[in-house]
Amino acid sequence: MAGPEIEHLMQMLARLPGLGPRSARRAALYLIKRRESALEPLAAALAQVAERVRPCPQCGNFDTASPCSLCADPRRDDGVICVVEDVDDLWALERTRAFSGRYHVLGGLLSALDGIGPEDLHLPRLLERAGQPVVQEIILALPATIEGQTTAHYIADRLKAAETPDHSLRVSGLAHGVPVGGELDYLDDGTLSQALRARRPV
Amino acid sequence: MAGPEIEHLMQMLARLPGLGPRSARRAALYLIKRRESALEPLAAALAQVAERVRPCPQCGNFDTASPCSLCADPRRDDGVICVVEDVDDLWALERTRAFSGRYHVLGGLLSALDGIGPEDLHLPRLLERAGQPVVQEIILALPATIEGQTTAHYIADRLKAAETPDHSLRVSGLAHGVPVGGELDYLDDGTLSQALRARRPV
Ligand SMILES: [Zn+2]
Ligand SMILES: [Zn+2]
Repeated sequence: MAGPEIEHLMQMLARLPGLGPRSARRAALYLIKRRESALEPLAAALAQVAERVRPCPQCGNFDTASPCSLCADPRRDDGVICVVEDVDDLWALERTRAFSGRYHVLGGLLSALDGIGPEDLHLPRLLERAGQPVVQEIILALPATIEGQTTAHYIADRLKAAETPDHSLRVSGLAHGVPVGGELDYLDDGTLSQALRARRPV
Repeated sequence: MAGPEIEHLMQMLARLPGLGPRSARRAALYLIKRRESALEPLAAALAQVAERVRPCPQCGNFDTASPCSLCADPRRDDGVICVVEDVDDLWALERTRAFSGRYHVLGGLLSALDGIGPEDLHLPRLLERAGQPVVQEIILALPATIEGQTTAHYIADRLKAAETPDHSLRVSGLAHGVPVGGELDYLDDGTLSQALRARRPV
């Protein structure tokens, strides 16, 4: 009814996370109605990103610069590498402005269920980076899930095994507990019991 | 942090209806991670639509063909024109498969508040089309809002004024009432009272 080009555009949009078939249809129509002000600029923005953005060979972040702006920034601390599952986590941490070291994107988590083993993650480059004398701490900022914690333990073991008498590493994880502003009764039992066990004097 | 190209893409995506800043970020990352399988195909689909899709000079539908496939389809009934506010409404009606006549997209509704007058709608072409001897009925499929009903009354008056002794038109509107499958208590009072006034023997 709307022609194959429009149908195809709706299908492409419907694959985006957060857009179902219904909102994809609305988005397609929004774009078609605003050819010069929305459709063509979005097409150009996508083409620019497709042409210029690549994963950083150092950390795995996405950027037009190589190495990425975070790896290249001389003001950041070379002594700490924060290991994340994915680029979204890196961006989330950057938005907090709470971390000023370097990052390393694993590109996934170990999962027996999904058949994801160590060889599927960007581990060799992490071990290589962690071996540099300047590096003192590795923060494993991985999700508080079975896969996340399995991966964290695996990496911690590999890092410890690679230590030499001249170079030892602190390996840390994120604190688990009640999210700031979070109501207790919305929390799952695991988080709540972990928050209780890790209780601190006030 | 993510580079100006990615930030720009996120901003473009965040303007789409149904995508907020957060889902625009997820959508951008989804695309960047899948350059060949999602990003480039979406850019190509947008470019295709930008290049080939135009409003139909006859009815206002969007299509690559001109006149559009609905206007050109010889199996559709020339005797009835269904007037809709926008192309989304045309698509919604087409999905029902309940109508097999022609369409006319107004491109808006009269609104004193938004300063939208008759000259802002695609009215001259509608009056011209309605004047063709073959046309017997005009269905005003406009929203059951003040603007929608004001517009419907305005168009009905213009159509009646243009009638000749040789050519009279039936002008109808959509029935209002309880949506099929709709719970009564989710309906606004206007719909409910209108459904009550228009009650029918069962
Ligand atoms: Zn980097
Ligand atoms: Zn048409």
